Amino acid sequence: MQPINLSDYETLAQAHIEPAAWDFIQGGSDDEITLRANRSAFERLRLRPCMLVKGSTSNLSTTVLGTPVSMPILVAPAANHGLAHPEGECAAAQGAALAHTLITVSTFSTRSLEDIAASANAPLWFQLYLYRNLEVSASVVQRAEAAGYRAIVLTADLPRLGNREKDIRNNFSLPSHMGLANFPGAEAEENHYNLPFTPTWETLDWLKTVTSLPILLKGILTAEDALLALERGVSGIIVSNHGGRQLDSAIASIDALPEIVEAVAGRCEVYLDGGIRRGTDALKALALGARAVLLGRPIFWGLAVNGAEGVHHVLEILRTELELAMILSGHYSLDTIDRSLVKSCLTK
Amino acid sequence: MQPINLSDYETLAQAHIEPAAWDFIQGGSDDEITLRANRSAFERLRLRPCMLVKGSTSNLSTTVLGTPVSMPILVAPAANHGLAHPEGECAAAQGAALAHTLITVSTFSTRSLEDIAASANAPLWFQLYLYRNLEVSASVVQRAEAAGYRAIVLTADLPRLGNREKDIRNNFSLPSHMGLANFPGAEAEENHYNLPFTPTWETLDWLKTVTSLPILLKGILTAEDALLALERGVSGIIVSNHGGRQLDSAIASIDALPEIVEAVAGRCEVYLDGGIRRGTDALKALALGARAVLLGRPIFWGLAVNGAEGVHHVLEILRTELELAMILSGHYSLDTIDRSLVKSCLTK
Amino acid sequence: MQPINLSDYETLAQAHIEPAAWDFIQGGSDDEITLRANRSAFERLRLRPCMLVKGSTSNLSTTVLGTPVSMPILVAPAANHGLAHPEGECAAAQGAALAHTLITVSTFSTRSLEDIAASANAPLWFQLYLYRNLEVSASVVQRAEAAGYRAIVLTADLPRLGNREKDIRNNFSLPSHMGLANFPGAEAEENHYNLPFTPTWETLDWLKTVTSLPILLKGILTAEDALLALERGVSGIIVSNHGGRQLDSAIASIDALPEIVEAVAGRCEVYLDGGIRRGTDALKALALGARAVLLGRPIFWGLAVNGAEGVHHVLEILRTELELAMILSGHYSLDTIDRSLVKSCLTK
Amino acid sequence: MQPINLSDYETLAQAHIEPAAWDFIQGGSDDEITLRANRSAFERLRLRPCMLVKGSTSNLSTTVLGTPVSMPILVAPAANHGLAHPEGECAAAQGAALAHTLITVSTFSTRSLEDIAASANAPLWFQLYLYRNLEVSASVVQRAEAAGYRAIVLTADLPRLGNREKDIRNNFSLPSHMGLANFPGAEAEENHYNLPFTPTWETLDWLKTVTSLPILLKGILTAEDALLALERGVSGIIVSNHGGRQLDSAIASIDALPEIVEAVAGRCEVYLDGGIRRGTDALKALALGARAVLLGRPIFWGLAVNGAEGVHHVLEILRTELELAMILSGHYSLDTIDRSLVKSCLTK
Repeated sequence: MQPINLSDYETLAQAHIEPAAWDFIQGGSDDEITLRANRSAFERLRLRPCMLVKGSTSNLSTTVLGTPVSMPILVAPAANHGLAHPEGECAAAQGAALAHTLITVSTFSTRSLEDIAASANAPLWFQLYLYRNLEVSASVVQRAEAAGYRAIVLTADLPRLGNREKDIRNNFSLPSHMGLANFPGAEAEENHYNLPFTPTWETLDWLKTVTSLPILLKGILTAEDALLALERGVSGIIVSNHGGRQLDSAIASIDALPEIVEAVAGRCEVYLDGGIRRGTDALKALALGARAVLLGRPIFWGLAVNGAEGVHHVLEILRTELELAMILSGHYSLDTIDRSLVKSCLTK
Repeated sequence: MQPINLSDYETLAQAHIEPAAWDFIQGGSDDEITLRANRSAFERLRLRPCMLVKGSTSNLSTTVLGTPVSMPILVAPAANHGLAHPEGECAAAQGAALAHTLITVSTFSTRSLEDIAASANAPLWFQLYLYRNLEVSASVVQRAEAAGYRAIVLTADLPRLGNREKDIRNNFSLPSHMGLANFPGAEAEENHYNLPFTPTWETLDWLKTVTSLPILLKGILTAEDALLALERGVSGIIVSNHGGRQLDSAIASIDALPEIVEAVAGRCEVYLDGGIRRGTDALKALALGARAVLLGRPIFWGLAVNGAEGVHHVLEILRTELELAMILSGHYSLDTIDRSLVKSCLTK
Repeated sequence: MQPINLSDYETLAQAHIEPAAWDFIQGGSDDEITLRANRSAFERLRLRPCMLVKGSTSNLSTTVLGTPVSMPILVAPAANHGLAHPEGECAAAQGAALAHTLITVSTFSTRSLEDIAASANAPLWFQLYLYRNLEVSASVVQRAEAAGYRAIVLTADLPRLGNREKDIRNNFSLPSHMGLANFPGAEAEENHYNLPFTPTWETLDWLKTVTSLPILLKGILTAEDALLALERGVSGIIVSNHGGRQLDSAIASIDALPEIVEAVAGRCEVYLDGGIRRGTDALKALALGARAVLLGRPIFWGLAVNGAEGVHHVLEILRTELELAMILSGHYSLDTIDRSLVKSCLTK
Repeated sequence: MQPINLSDYETLAQAHIEPAAWDFIQGGSDDEITLRANRSAFERLRLRPCMLVKGSTSNLSTTVLGTPVSMPILVAPAANHGLAHPEGECAAAQGAALAHTLITVSTFSTRSLEDIAASANAPLWFQLYLYRNLEVSASVVQRAEAAGYRAIVLTADLPRLGNREKDIRNNFSLPSHMGLANFPGAEAEENHYNLPFTPTWETLDWLKTVTSLPILLKGILTAEDALLALERGVSGIIVSNHGGRQLDSAIASIDALPEIVEAVAGRCEVYLDGGIRRGTDALKALALGARAVLLGRPIFWGLAVNGAEGVHHVLEILRTELELAMILSGHYSLDTIDRSLVKSCLTK
């Protein structure tokens, strides 16, 4: 099969990935209510397209925290790209670079943040899980800054690991040292990511003392928290439920987006991940106020099928779909997209 | 099987049409969310019938832009009727004539607009896709006017072709010269309909300079666009999402109808296509303010099963169903039908 | 299988009835949307039971237009009980009598109205389909009055027969003279019930000139019609969509009930048929303002399984279920039941 | 299979219990609409988690009517634990004690209330079904008080036994003397629990004359009844529909909770049972105002699989899930949980 959409990539990828690793990548927590809701919530939203707008080719380029990207579709942070491809995050970064977009590298990447930065000239953000030893965390943040990363994405929604029952039943554990490329040697052992991470609002204050990079907060699902984040001076918020892998039955990310956008009222940038599989999904998120969306699992699928080229193709499929969806709804640039484009099919 | 409803015709037709052509006719874009929504939206609407109204036979005759038709059910424009029957649009026009109703002929008909006009005495509208070379477009419009067509239907919702994945997977292409009967010879090659069509609001101004026929705008799904169309002096609006073949997850056409009817407030006629399969569907559209509805795919089914007679039978089935639905809901003429006839079963 | 609920009777009955007759009894019109909605609408309603109310046995007895019955569950008019049992309506009336409740005899009964009256001492209403020859109709009404029937139920929702596709596909026709017991000989031929019946509001005026019996109007689904019926002096309204056999996608009868009860405001009695299969269904209808409910298809099931005894058992099952539902929701008499007992599970 | 959640316990338990007893334990009344609604209502509620809250381990301990328990998850009263395990309620009480939580013992326990109290040092409540002979009831209440039980839970929703059709079809009857351990000898025969129980509001007055223990009322589903209960001086209300075993299509208990909490306004404690299978279910109930939730069927599953240890494990699974859900939603103690944590996914 020649893959023509992200669902094709998902189907093809499964043959390339170990069953237990597949479950780890694909699964959610508990009964996977939120995992499914991330998709079904998009399906409940309907588009109200405008016609006869003047334009020909659509301009998808934008900036994210000031960094130019070719489209409002970024690569989400995700641990252990190495499960899908031996080149792991290096291949993913090359795919992102080919698509002229940004990749967010996870603290638990399978290649070191410096190797990833060196392997491709994609713009980079660094995702941070907090270590009990704050010096270790400060050090990795400063290494990221030194390596040219442009922002720090602090993950807020993992005070504990979610209850992922597939992994428990598979007795799944990562291959040794997987996900620890950023912490070589003894440091790795003692700071392994099964340890509890407990960032707090104060962590943002601390983080500003160790880096001058802008800070995004990832995993926010309520207006209340968005306002607290603004008070602490974040530059961006990523609306996310961790792909349905943390608190099960948490609100779908696209359902949380409107109240957060309304609360923030333009004072920082708002992003979204969770369930983006079609250009129309991205368009709905943009219409509801997201500056850009981030792709998580589909990057694994692209990696598994064809490494950097697979990632590139996944991103290009979505770009093509988003561009077509924009043109078919009368938008030749991102600026004209607003909330009037979307209607819930249940609230008519 | 003796077909007694449109669903029967659909079942029978599949055996008469090549699988890839069948997919082309039946399919929608992306995940076919809108294709399905066009049907499910009708199912959510409930009828509130009136009883004991005086009357015997119901009068379904009406006018569409002043042209008398025997019922408020018309033939929608659709490219390539030739995929379903060798006589293509000529047979469809004969079927429409037998039913004393109007047919809208597509720019991409498989018979020339003059042949179609000559083959039957049904009233005709001409559907226009805009060519890059406006002189070609002007010429075809003027030929339609000369051949007795009574209105021009400008399609607004195809700035690009929708993403129809079945056609991509089937590597489907139309038989050579299919759909180009209106553009013989070299002209056809250079203006093939895979080229982008990009009508704009200004196109309406231009169109009024090349024809004195009334103009309908097809593919409108929002009140905002309906108001713009009114400003440009259209005589009618066809609420449509192109049968779910263009922007996927676009609002169902019957769900878009109320806001458009309200915005237009009687200043032009409003039509609807998309998902009409039963007389009660037509009745719901009429109740929500449509002057008439248009049939797309069911015409292919009638053609495939039995040519002009099949089209005639499809139309007569729907007429009989609509008449019965009107009588069973207490309406002996179209004039008494209004919005109070319909209630959403979700908003009780 | 020993039947313990109405669904069991349905299952058992199918083996006793010819397939085409079974389809005739069970089927609805078109796509059977309303047939299914009559059931699903009940399922969407939730009960809010009251606890610790003083009482022991529940009193279900009530009056219907002044006639005492042992419970608010009556036998609906239905043509051709003879399809289910050779004794037809006589057996049904005996079953009703055993249950001390009322039966409504159809114009198209398979036994004459006099035979039915003589066969059991159940209170009787006579359901009237209007004949083109009003003298025939007057005569049958007067015969009913003479035979002791206590009210005339004029059916409003059959200006034409609904589109019952199962019957068309089965080429179903009633056995000769079935349903014509009230019109022996040549009269039957010329007034066969395939003829159109077109009662109007004026019919009610005429009807009052030929009988002094109270008149109920059956087949009303809107507040508007209920008010018109009140103006014409009806004694009762039966909210009904003819068991989903007439206008398909008509509103479910239980969904129509509230607006009618509100409009009527106690000025006449309001009844309901359509989808009653459980005591809790009856309780919901009572809570929403029905004086009593009527059973249609389940009577055929009882007849088919065990004649008069089967009908009796069906009625007793439902009585037992209703009594239990009343006690479990804190109601020891019908008087205390009101709208606060019901809540839609979608409108929370 | 090593059970890791309550659903696993359900699967495993079935192999340990006689089919007819399994149906008795698992089944609901009539069509089991309420049984299913108890689950689906939870699935419609979405959580709005808060992030970056300071905390590490979560404190789940609370008090129930002043009695300290280690978590807000209690054992619901249920007759005949002996169907699942020979040690019956003694094993269940031992399981509760191991989890440092409270068990409510049923009037129809298979071990005597004194034996149960002696077998474990879990805090105990005694559930009361009223006997026709009030002296018998007074005696059992006083025995409970003497044995150290800390409250009386009067069941309000069983004026009659619900219509449990599985039990009827199975011709199920409890093994002789099952459920009568509290009424030895001849007393049992004459007071067997098939007799009608008809507590009324006055019963609460009587009950206060025979015991000084606090009284909870179980089976309340409306604000109206909650206010009546307050007037009678209850110390607590258990919102419950008897696990879907009494009035079918009664409102789901979690759907009834908000109006009751609002009516009570803190004047007594409010509890909930019905459909709790995950820590997130418990969290939703707490967010909507429940002081604690009670587990019914899962206790049978734990008993069947592994006796007291099984019950303990079931309770510990739920504790772990609730703790994780609290931490993942930013709550390190029960005090901070409020209604803003929950949103219905249908009312957006």
